[in-house]
Amino acid sequence: MTQHRIGDHTIEFANHPRILSSAAVVGPKEGRGPLGQAFDLALEDPLYGQKSYEQAEHAMFQEACQRCLNKAQMPRERVQALLGGDLLNQIMAASLAARELSIPFLGLYGACSTMAESLILGGILVDGGYASPVLCAAGSHYCTAERQYRFPLEYGNQRTLAAQWTVTGTGACLLGGEGDGLASLTLATIGQVVDLGIRDANNMGAAMAPAAADTLTRHFLDTGRKPQDYDQIITGDLGRVGSDLLLELMEQRGFPIRESLHTDCGLCVFDPKDDVHAGASGCGCSASVLSAMILPRLQSGEWRRVLFMATGALLSPTTSQQGETIPGVAHAVVLEGGNQG
Amino acid sequence: MTQHRIGDHTIEFANHPRILSSAAVVGPKEGRGPLGQAFDLALEDPLYGQKSYEQAEHAMFQEACQRCLNKAQMPRERVQALLGGDLLNQIMAASLAARELSIPFLGLYGACSTMAESLILGGILVDGGYASPVLCAAGSHYCTAERQYRFPLEYGNQRTLAAQWTVTGTGACLLGGEGDGLASLTLATIGQVVDLGIRDANNMGAAMAPAAADTLTRHFLDTGRKPQDYDQIITGDLGRVGSDLLLELMEQRGFPIRESLHTDCGLCVFDPKDDVHAGASGCGCSASVLSAMILPRLQSGEWRRVLFMATGALLSPTTSQQGETIPGVAHAVVLEGGNQG
Repeated sequence: MTQHRIGDHTIEFANHPRILSSAAVVGPKEGRGPLGQAFDLALEDPLYGQKSYEQAEHAMFQEACQRCLNKAQMPRERVQALLGGDLLNQIMAASLAARELSIPFLGLYGACSTMAESLILGGILVDGGYASPVLCAAGSHYCTAERQYRFPLEYGNQRTLAAQWTVTGTGACLLGGEGDGLASLTLATIGQVVDLGIRDANNMGAAMAPAAADTLTRHFLDTGRKPQDYDQIITGDLGRVGSDLLLELMEQRGFPIRESLHTDCGLCVFDPKDDVHAGASGCGCSASVLSAMILPRLQSGEWRRVLFMATGALLSPTTSQQGETIPGVAHAVVLEGGNQG
Repeated sequence: MTQHRIGDHTIEFANHPRILSSAAVVGPKEGRGPLGQAFDLALEDPLYGQKSYEQAEHAMFQEACQRCLNKAQMPRERVQALLGGDLLNQIMAASLAARELSIPFLGLYGACSTMAESLILGGILVDGGYASPVLCAAGSHYCTAERQYRFPLEYGNQRTLAAQWTVTGTGACLLGGEGDGLASLTLATIGQVVDLGIRDANNMGAAMAPAAADTLTRHFLDTGRKPQDYDQIITGDLGRVGSDLLLELMEQRGFPIRESLHTDCGLCVFDPKDDVHAGASGCGCSASVLSAMILPRLQSGEWRRVLFMATGALLSPTTSQQGETIPGVAHAVVLEGGNQG
């Protein structure tokens, strides 16, 4: 049996699975942001013609998957697996989209780390010859997340300065074993759950930063690489608070990362004028930025090799009410421009 | 790249990943049932010394994982991934257990199909040399599931005759690439989401049976096998209603299965005197029966080759309230006794 491991936590994709196409469908506020033109579709109405925000989230998930397939001219009957999830209880947006698409479905839940989790598992399916092509997707919706995790929007709650704004959006990638791709997957580091005792559900960045630092440190130790071996280290949605903490933690651990080498997807989505406080979050944050910003820059050659690390805060309203702290998790994938195979 | 595919939906495990050990921790009612003596631990108190049922579910998940590792004398530091999930919103039982165990964590959600989903993905990680050993686990708790999906127990609601009783239990399996095992994984069929329009959240069996029939039919078409090529076809938790429907659907599809060839985990857990109506359900149902009944019979040689197919009903209270029907999904894994490698 060939071993595809480097160190204790890192996987090597020997066959360099390609991202053949990607698509992102987002909400109106995201469409007004700096990446607005780069999304495949920015909705004018967050209800997307549906009767509920949950139904809109499902429709958006499905639309992003379908557009991703269309861009690769891939009939959905040929897709051998859909791996994905969202923030809704019982990941219903992904499940209902999988029903409509009729693609064999493996549901994932990694909170806002889901896009990286789906790329890792989808990448393994393709790399090992177990399924190809496979569709990887993750999504979220501000209006459903607020009423599920915090308060219904109708309450008009004030948001704290550390709070992040859940992205209304879904990003999808089609992975395949051959052909031209936007980028290739070369390595991945699976993260452990880390919990330093944060209890504030309005400060996800602080809850996720220790997990991000843990996975990043393990990645460097496993691979012998340094931060500067990457053109950019891109975190999922640490936001302003979590990004600052990550850089501080990495300095303490002996892997200082200069600020220009780090991008957080949570700081890329919204117009600062939109007053979203600490930045963007949600499964759809890193997923849509991957499609709209990261993959295009890899394809154009502006970046040759990046570390994409989505971060998740593993909490539920029930665990918060029962006094649990908020564990975090982060999964990292190395993406390289063009076809490395 | 070696291809590990048979037909459109089926994966071949060329290296026959082994199940090195398994463990099941269950509640008191399950302990009184016909498999009572075969579980590793039957709790006397469904609260398991915790302050809430949710905390008990988390502690039970963790205990089953730890006992599984102990039985294989496997230090948890050597385990390269934990793949699993549960029914709690945001799969908090699995996430919190992953935090305590400090094993790299890939969260899954497939409702009651989760155990099969974790075996498929865990099997691929081991088979392809991406991680080994890996821990696969799924759990549920009657008291948390009732208040989350239906009503708090304190309401004393009457249950319909088609209703199933969520198993309080967690099952865990340790997969590895070599050594003696209880059984080996040889094939797997990833299921599609199927929805024939059932809306009754008290009739999960009817919602899941069409997905079970779909996956089973695809498995037979992909592999050229017939039902009688298996010593037993074991479904996850269709219960009485769903099992009858499955046999009827399979007859219609040209793959009649005689009743003695089919076992449903949902009909194995509870004492009929306990009046659980249509049977058992929950992620922990197929997971704990796998450990307590299926693997021992494969190890003893009573069965040589079985098809283990866990079934999930993909609903949430929100989608039910919004008028959605209940989609089902089923994933199948072929388990063979001894070491087939």
